[in-house]
Amino acid sequence: MDNNQSSTAAVLVIGNEILSGRTEDKNIHFLASELKKSGVALREVNVIRDEEAEIIKHVKDFSDRYTYVFLTGGIGPTHDDITTASVAKAFGVKLITSEEAVERIKARYREVGVILTDTALKMAQVPEGSTLITNGVSGAPGFMIKNVFVMAGVPDVMQSMFAYIKNNYIKGSGEIYSRSIRIFVGESTIAKELGDLQNKFADLEIGSYPFVAETGWAADLVVSGRDLKRIDECAIELKQILNTIKIEFKEV
Amino acid sequence: MDNNQSSTAAVLVIGNEILSGRTEDKNIHFLASELKKSGVALREVNVIRDEEAEIIKHVKDFSDRYTYVFLTGGIGPTHDDITTASVAKAFGVKLITSEEAVERIKARYREVGVILTDTALKMAQVPEGSTLITNGVSGAPGFMIKNVFVMAGVPDVMQSMFAYIKNNYIKGSGEIYSRSIRIFVGESTIAKELGDLQNKFADLEIGSYPFVAETGWAADLVVSGRDLKRIDECAIELKQILNTIKIEFKEV
Repeated sequence: MDNNQSSTAAVLVIGNEILSGRTEDKNIHFLASELKKSGVALREVNVIRDEEAEIIKHVKDFSDRYTYVFLTGGIGPTHDDITTASVAKAFGVKLITSEEAVERIKARYREVGVILTDTALKMAQVPEGSTLITNGVSGAPGFMIKNVFVMAGVPDVMQSMFAYIKNNYIKGSGEIYSRSIRIFVGESTIAKELGDLQNKFADLEIGSYPFVAETGWAADLVVSGRDLKRIDECAIELKQILNTIKIEFKEV
Repeated sequence: MDNNQSSTAAVLVIGNEILSGRTEDKNIHFLASELKKSGVALREVNVIRDEEAEIIKHVKDFSDRYTYVFLTGGIGPTHDDITTASVAKAFGVKLITSEEAVERIKARYREVGVILTDTALKMAQVPEGSTLITNGVSGAPGFMIKNVFVMAGVPDVMQSMFAYIKNNYIKGSGEIYSRSIRIFVGESTIAKELGDLQNKFADLEIGSYPFVAETGWAADLVVSGRDLKRIDECAIELKQILNTIKIEFKEV
């Protein structure tokens, strides 16, 4: 499938806690699903350490190569939150205090009756030229600079920020559709025919995703692309093949 | 924490189905946890598409930079399984048929009463110079070449392969220990003191991982490193600080 003309994206997860196995990431799957719904092709995900040089390298690289870049993690108030300063360095701009962010954080702290520390105001710092990303869960905003969206790592907050981003900034290239057919034998039984079908429908993408079902090996055969009519043609032909070689299947 | 002298690792997940949101990856968290237990520092995770050029680029890069590289996905019998051929190209070696792998696959197919197709034998191909990785779940082996371990993407099979790898090939640098203290206020309340403590215990790593608890914002403060005595000293000092500034906590 030719995605070269499409909106593309990369996700950069900044988190020692993911790499150490302490925390199981929940954001990658959420973003992958949401981007697909928006018609944006997620091309790459990278999980890296909270290290300035690593963050700078990846932000520059991804910003050049993809339509949208989504960062999660490391924008809190503690010493190990270095994402914001690193993104500023990646773009060669200063870190400034956003008065709007200060007001939002102050308002939220008042609202929940928590004493505002000086360190909390670290969360009001953004790279110069950024736009704030609103979130409904905590007072501290994320920010966008150029094509890079920087969000919190806490899933609830990240999802709230992403909803705002999606409504305001994301332009997809039309939804990617798919049809899935599940077979209850190992995928090797259909491997040759599936390869031939992929050659015939070169404008679509046919994937085979094996898994272990209660009855033994099974696989989901997934036809995807942007043209629903073509997908249906391909799915019909696949079902004919499965009938011919007597493989049980169901649409899922 | 200086990890420069340690065994390091990177994980490369090859999977369009993860990037499209179709499948939620289960292998990253498993590998992160297991590597930590083995005393290997996981430095980076990358999820990329099933594309030859992408695979070649990342395999070369990771193989040069890390002690161990773990690949998951794309070693099955269907047309979209291109990992094995791509790894061979990354190392400039031929793809050969492993007679041992042929025997294992034949034996397993006989055992479960499934007809062996020619395409199934694609799974017996490995880059020249590889060593097979046994797995107890399916007949098809993974393989290792140089410092790169190539495993199935199906979690059950991957875990079986990893157990074999761990027992036979992984040399860690001693376990990484940690102490976790949970506070039931936002992390900004302790941010300054935590930064000072990190400066004092520069040989350790102190992380603050916020989350939303039922009672509102909370955070786990995690002290980690290879020297358990130092970790305990640091944890005691942290608890004294929390008592002084009257923040409720519990050890978790």
